[in-house]
Amino acid sequence: MFKINESYLKLPGSYLFSTVGRKSREYAAAHPDREVISLGIGDVTQPLVPAIIEALHGAVDEMSRAETFHGYAPDLGYAFLRETIAREDYAARGCDIAADEIFISDGAKSDSANIQEIFAPDSRIAVCDPVYPVYVDSNVMAGRCGTYDPATERWSDVIYMPCTAENGFSPDLPSETPDLIYLCFPNNPTGASVTKERLQDWVDYAHRVGAVIIYDAAYEAYINTEHVPHSVFECEGARECAIELRSFSKNAGFTGTRLGFTVIPKDLKCGDTMLHSLWARRHGTKFNGAPYIVQKAAMAVYSDEGRQQLKDQVGYYMANARAIREGLTDCGYTVYGGVDAPYIWLRTPDGLTSWEFFDRLLENANVVGTPGSGFGPSGEGYFRLTAFGSKENTQRALERIRNM
Amino acid sequence: MFKINESYLKLPGSYLFSTVGRKSREYAAAHPDREVISLGIGDVTQPLVPAIIEALHGAVDEMSRAETFHGYAPDLGYAFLRETIAREDYAARGCDIAADEIFISDGAKSDSANIQEIFAPDSRIAVCDPVYPVYVDSNVMAGRCGTYDPATERWSDVIYMPCTAENGFSPDLPSETPDLIYLCFPNNPTGASVTKERLQDWVDYAHRVGAVIIYDAAYEAYINTEHVPHSVFECEGARECAIELRSFSKNAGFTGTRLGFTVIPKDLKCGDTMLHSLWARRHGTKFNGAPYIVQKAAMAVYSDEGRQQLKDQVGYYMANARAIREGLTDCGYTVYGGVDAPYIWLRTPDGLTSWEFFDRLLENANVVGTPGSGFGPSGEGYFRLTAFGSKENTQRALERIRNM
Repeated sequence: MFKINESYLKLPGSYLFSTVGRKSREYAAAHPDREVISLGIGDVTQPLVPAIIEALHGAVDEMSRAETFHGYAPDLGYAFLRETIAREDYAARGCDIAADEIFISDGAKSDSANIQEIFAPDSRIAVCDPVYPVYVDSNVMAGRCGTYDPATERWSDVIYMPCTAENGFSPDLPSETPDLIYLCFPNNPTGASVTKERLQDWVDYAHRVGAVIIYDAAYEAYINTEHVPHSVFECEGARECAIELRSFSKNAGFTGTRLGFTVIPKDLKCGDTMLHSLWARRHGTKFNGAPYIVQKAAMAVYSDEGRQQLKDQVGYYMANARAIREGLTDCGYTVYGGVDAPYIWLRTPDGLTSWEFFDRLLENANVVGTPGSGFGPSGEGYFRLTAFGSKENTQRALERIRNM
Repeated sequence: MFKINESYLKLPGSYLFSTVGRKSREYAAAHPDREVISLGIGDVTQPLVPAIIEALHGAVDEMSRAETFHGYAPDLGYAFLRETIAREDYAARGCDIAADEIFISDGAKSDSANIQEIFAPDSRIAVCDPVYPVYVDSNVMAGRCGTYDPATERWSDVIYMPCTAENGFSPDLPSETPDLIYLCFPNNPTGASVTKERLQDWVDYAHRVGAVIIYDAAYEAYINTEHVPHSVFECEGARECAIELRSFSKNAGFTGTRLGFTVIPKDLKCGDTMLHSLWARRHGTKFNGAPYIVQKAAMAVYSDEGRQQLKDQVGYYMANARAIREGLTDCGYTVYGGVDAPYIWLRTPDGLTSWEFFDRLLENANVVGTPGSGFGPSGEGYFRLTAFGSKENTQRALERIRNM
């Protein structure tokens, strides 16, 4: 009789967004006269910019003629896109990354979930707390995290690195030695960024203990502050100890269009084995390339026209971030993030728990956000609002919070 | 010090298509005056049909306006597509499959590689020989296949089911008991189809031994013969023991557009656990939905206009298949497949090995095919040609083989 992967059964339900959704729906049903505004989920709301739309239409037309039709894409991505990324995202920032060290995928979520596969089953992972749940869940499914303690909301074999106001949302180096270190800057959910010096500390630490940094830079387009690194490969020695995950979801509005990439330098080795070869083998065996039309659309991200349009789009969201940050500060809230990231992380007032504040905000302002405790126990007492709403909804939500 | 997944190192290089490619390039370089025609790789050559192109343009336009923009898709696929598939691909054939038992993905290759994840690490797999390499390789990467013996080209813990002319390319029930049985009909590479009675035998067998059938029906659109089943769910009892993989690559030319789906009935359980829940959890954690524009394009596959255009497109390729089958038979070759599948599987003449025939065909006819031995040891002495070339190239290739 066949058996299932028992590790899947260890996963607690993904209560966070389903509970947020249920509570919002119940409230709306009970109060049909009130309009609920969501600043909860991290999904974009602005349409694809004209340069991308034009590129998509052009690529669709190519698919309509035998002479320009494209069948299977290269597993690792089209050279035109990989070369452009190497030049524009890396060489332009002084990072030494070759086109063939870039792997195009259907998005950073898939990559961040799949990357653990190329490591040993008994690898020890370290994650920030609070954290994007996919890093941990994908390792649980691979049987790597031990047992879950509902009381502490922690896995026995995971190294947690608390990120709170006390350490400026910048985790301390762990006291136990990990094999894999997941870092995300600018951070989801805290909105914190990292200085180059601090990131260099992490790279040096990874060298020292023989760990690999999995660096999620999905929000790098939102960096405004000078000297905040856009890539881990701005650090000395990162080519030997780091993998970087990137996304087109937030810099170009591709959440529903799907495209991302992972960078694995050929210098990153375990003995004689390049991790690059393992990931290439995974791509070749378990993936069949990202759509041609989407890869062509991504080229518009790097054109003069597309670049300007996307700068405006990111600026639109960051104006929301600023409005939320300043609006809440004016109301007396203690607010973090929102400077180099599209997320605002606020201290819940009056000693409320994250969920108590969720209820208060929903009931008194008809605004939905995300309870910080849903991202990990150190998120308790915090609350996340996103800047990805429309300007109008963001303003109205603030107005309501002000009048609360 | 971090360690890698050692199972990856067990994989022999994927020599088949790379060796085919290298030999073709070397020949072309040495004979610049000769034009090499490829009937090797199973990639389509005809453009997307007008109904699909129109649907793509329409969906791109939706993405250009805030009111109709689509962000994150539902992890499991848009309801409009799942409901259409349930109605058109299943209910219309008398199969009882609900929309929420259908999981939309970026393609059948990913799904066929990922599906093993929801089963226990020590699951025993059974595969046809010859076989699409992804089924085995994905299990090797998960540490499931034991050790590889280069002499026999077999993994110690895999149950191989030879498919040769002697058994009509229809595998016998295995003598050892598997947990997972990979079946693909119409078959890649042999082009064989299965009768409903024979498929029912497999379903009954799976029930008897407590195994799960992973049924790859990527080529179902090529079935011409009446009573050949299009879905494993045409069989009694399949809802309790089978998973079906489907693709838009070959019925709609989506090899470079990417879309597929997997069907897991809620009646398929291990104890109280529905495999449906495990796969839903995997999708929710490790995948972020297929692109909206591609899911909209797939809707055109089911419109009256699209349906007729795709019938013509499949007919175009099947005319190639018939031409190859009849042309080679006229030349004295023993030929299989090509009736309900876009692959022709021929016996190599004169006792040549698969690779010897590859060389003869390349040198004397400047035609590239795929050596059968590359798909498994029982493929030795066979050779695959595909019907996915253009009509002109297919005719010219045949002319050259005739004059060889």
